[in-house]
Amino acid sequence: MTDDSDAETDPQDAIDAVATDRDDRVYDHSAGDEQKGIPFVGAGPGDPKLLTVAGRDLLADADLVVHAGSLVNSELLDEYCADAETVSSIGKDLEELIPLMRDAYEAGDTVVRLHSGDPAIYGAALEQMDALEHEGVPTYIVPGVTSAFAASATMRTQLTLNEVANHVAFTRPQGKTLTEEEDHISEFVGMGDVTTCIYLGTHAVAETMERLLEDGHDPETPVAAVYHASWPDEDVIEGTIGTIGEKVEEAGYRASAMVIIGDAVGGEDYERSFLYGEWASGGSSDGSQEADD
Amino acid sequence: MTDDSDAETDPQDAIDAVATDRDDRVYDHSAGDEQKGIPFVGAGPGDPKLLTVAGRDLLADADLVVHAGSLVNSELLDEYCADAETVSSIGKDLEELIPLMRDAYEAGDTVVRLHSGDPAIYGAALEQMDALEHEGVPTYIVPGVTSAFAASATMRTQLTLNEVANHVAFTRPQGKTLTEEEDHISEFVGMGDVTTCIYLGTHAVAETMERLLEDGHDPETPVAAVYHASWPDEDVIEGTIGTIGEKVEEAGYRASAMVIIGDAVGGEDYERSFLYGEWASGGSSDGSQEADD
Repeated sequence: MTDDSDAETDPQDAIDAVATDRDDRVYDHSAGDEQKGIPFVGAGPGDPKLLTVAGRDLLADADLVVHAGSLVNSELLDEYCADAETVSSIGKDLEELIPLMRDAYEAGDTVVRLHSGDPAIYGAALEQMDALEHEGVPTYIVPGVTSAFAASATMRTQLTLNEVANHVAFTRPQGKTLTEEEDHISEFVGMGDVTTCIYLGTHAVAETMERLLEDGHDPETPVAAVYHASWPDEDVIEGTIGTIGEKVEEAGYRASAMVIIGDAVGGEDYERSFLYGEWASGGSSDGSQEADD
Repeated sequence: MTDDSDAETDPQDAIDAVATDRDDRVYDHSAGDEQKGIPFVGAGPGDPKLLTVAGRDLLADADLVVHAGSLVNSELLDEYCADAETVSSIGKDLEELIPLMRDAYEAGDTVVRLHSGDPAIYGAALEQMDALEHEGVPTYIVPGVTSAFAASATMRTQLTLNEVANHVAFTRPQGKTLTEEEDHISEFVGMGDVTTCIYLGTHAVAETMERLLEDGHDPETPVAAVYHASWPDEDVIEGTIGTIGEKVEEAGYRASAMVIIGDAVGGEDYERSFLYGEWASGGSSDGSQEADD
């Protein structure tokens, strides 16, 4: 770590700041509450109507919206941020973003930070929140719909399906960020009843599938790649571990696609949560899963 | 499977129906589009403001809302369904639910099926959709915010954090529904960089933690249990694999809590996505994760 400044407002100090004790606000507020400070809002998967009501209300009141550039559907900005200044965070490092948000907030502007999907999943919200808090600017998170849920909605299936897919993994493949040891895709697929959702990995689909074949996984395992789930140019590519790599390369999508591996992709042959022929058993369609074990 | 009726409208036929070929609607519509038929809407975690704009609009137009009873916050029904008939699905089996929705739809009513969270995660949407489609009633899914995202928002953390938690698992423990072999919680925790989110398992927290200890997992691993995330009575219980079981039992929560295991619970000691001291490197806070490998 370098320390190349002695100024009290050195942005590096803010960025190095790490919260230690649990914040009282964890107990004082519920998710969804409007709080003091800058909200880090999940924009959802893309369609403006898949933003939460809370997110839409916050954007409607904003003077400055710092958004995730091309990761957020511009239709959403057009629809909800007509009265705000909008700034893309793409290409800006924290040294630029933190003072931008801090200064606007301290000048009395209503500031919203808009991330794609849900901020808890492969976002970089927390490092910005820690830096802003260090600068005296309160922050909080407003959750959103993640792209895997839009993808499963588009495919008319569930990510969990009784006896077919009992679990779900959100994951990404090895690369510059993750080592080979940190790549758990083969382990998730090997469990047999996990729906594996790969984020940020479209460029690596072919090599990811090659590794799965080398590890002995069934080449017929269903895989779908959903590009820009819920966007106007949404596209669904279906195949198997053996075929999806080539199909995605042919389609030419480089990013913003969700790759989903597992039998839930097909939405078939799952076990109903009720007992066949036992109508009077009183099993309910929602409550059964909550109450049955 | 039994066949105890010869009537053409035997509801068992509808419930046994399984879609085989992929539906054209997968390609004709994007997630978030309003479609013909009955929408299966994710109500989100609880707070009415964490419903999507699409969901709120659909509820506002509904004549009949079939909802997941106590799994859906009554404030949400009060706020958005004032003009609709509301029916809880709890305690009703499909033989009752399917004709109820079908008959209302065929009589020209606008019908909405409201599930808690996102319908793709531990819901039972698909079996109802298959049955309704078999009866000639079109259906589609509108995604929602899952309770794990509300829980992480409340805790002011992310479920993924660079070098701390590279992956996320949505899972549930062994019990009546899952066998011991189908319980992957110990495998997820053993990977070391997975945030494990346990749905529907509050009643089994103590025994789940016992099994993790027997499997040799670090008793100091952070665990949080978030009861009713985003509801007015939301509660956060924090501990470790060694302590959370007793704490949750003392609190007395039996359901509707999300148990999250892993270092991301603390939101500390993660690696920033930028390079320390290299301000001019051009790493962006959103784009870096998308583009860096």
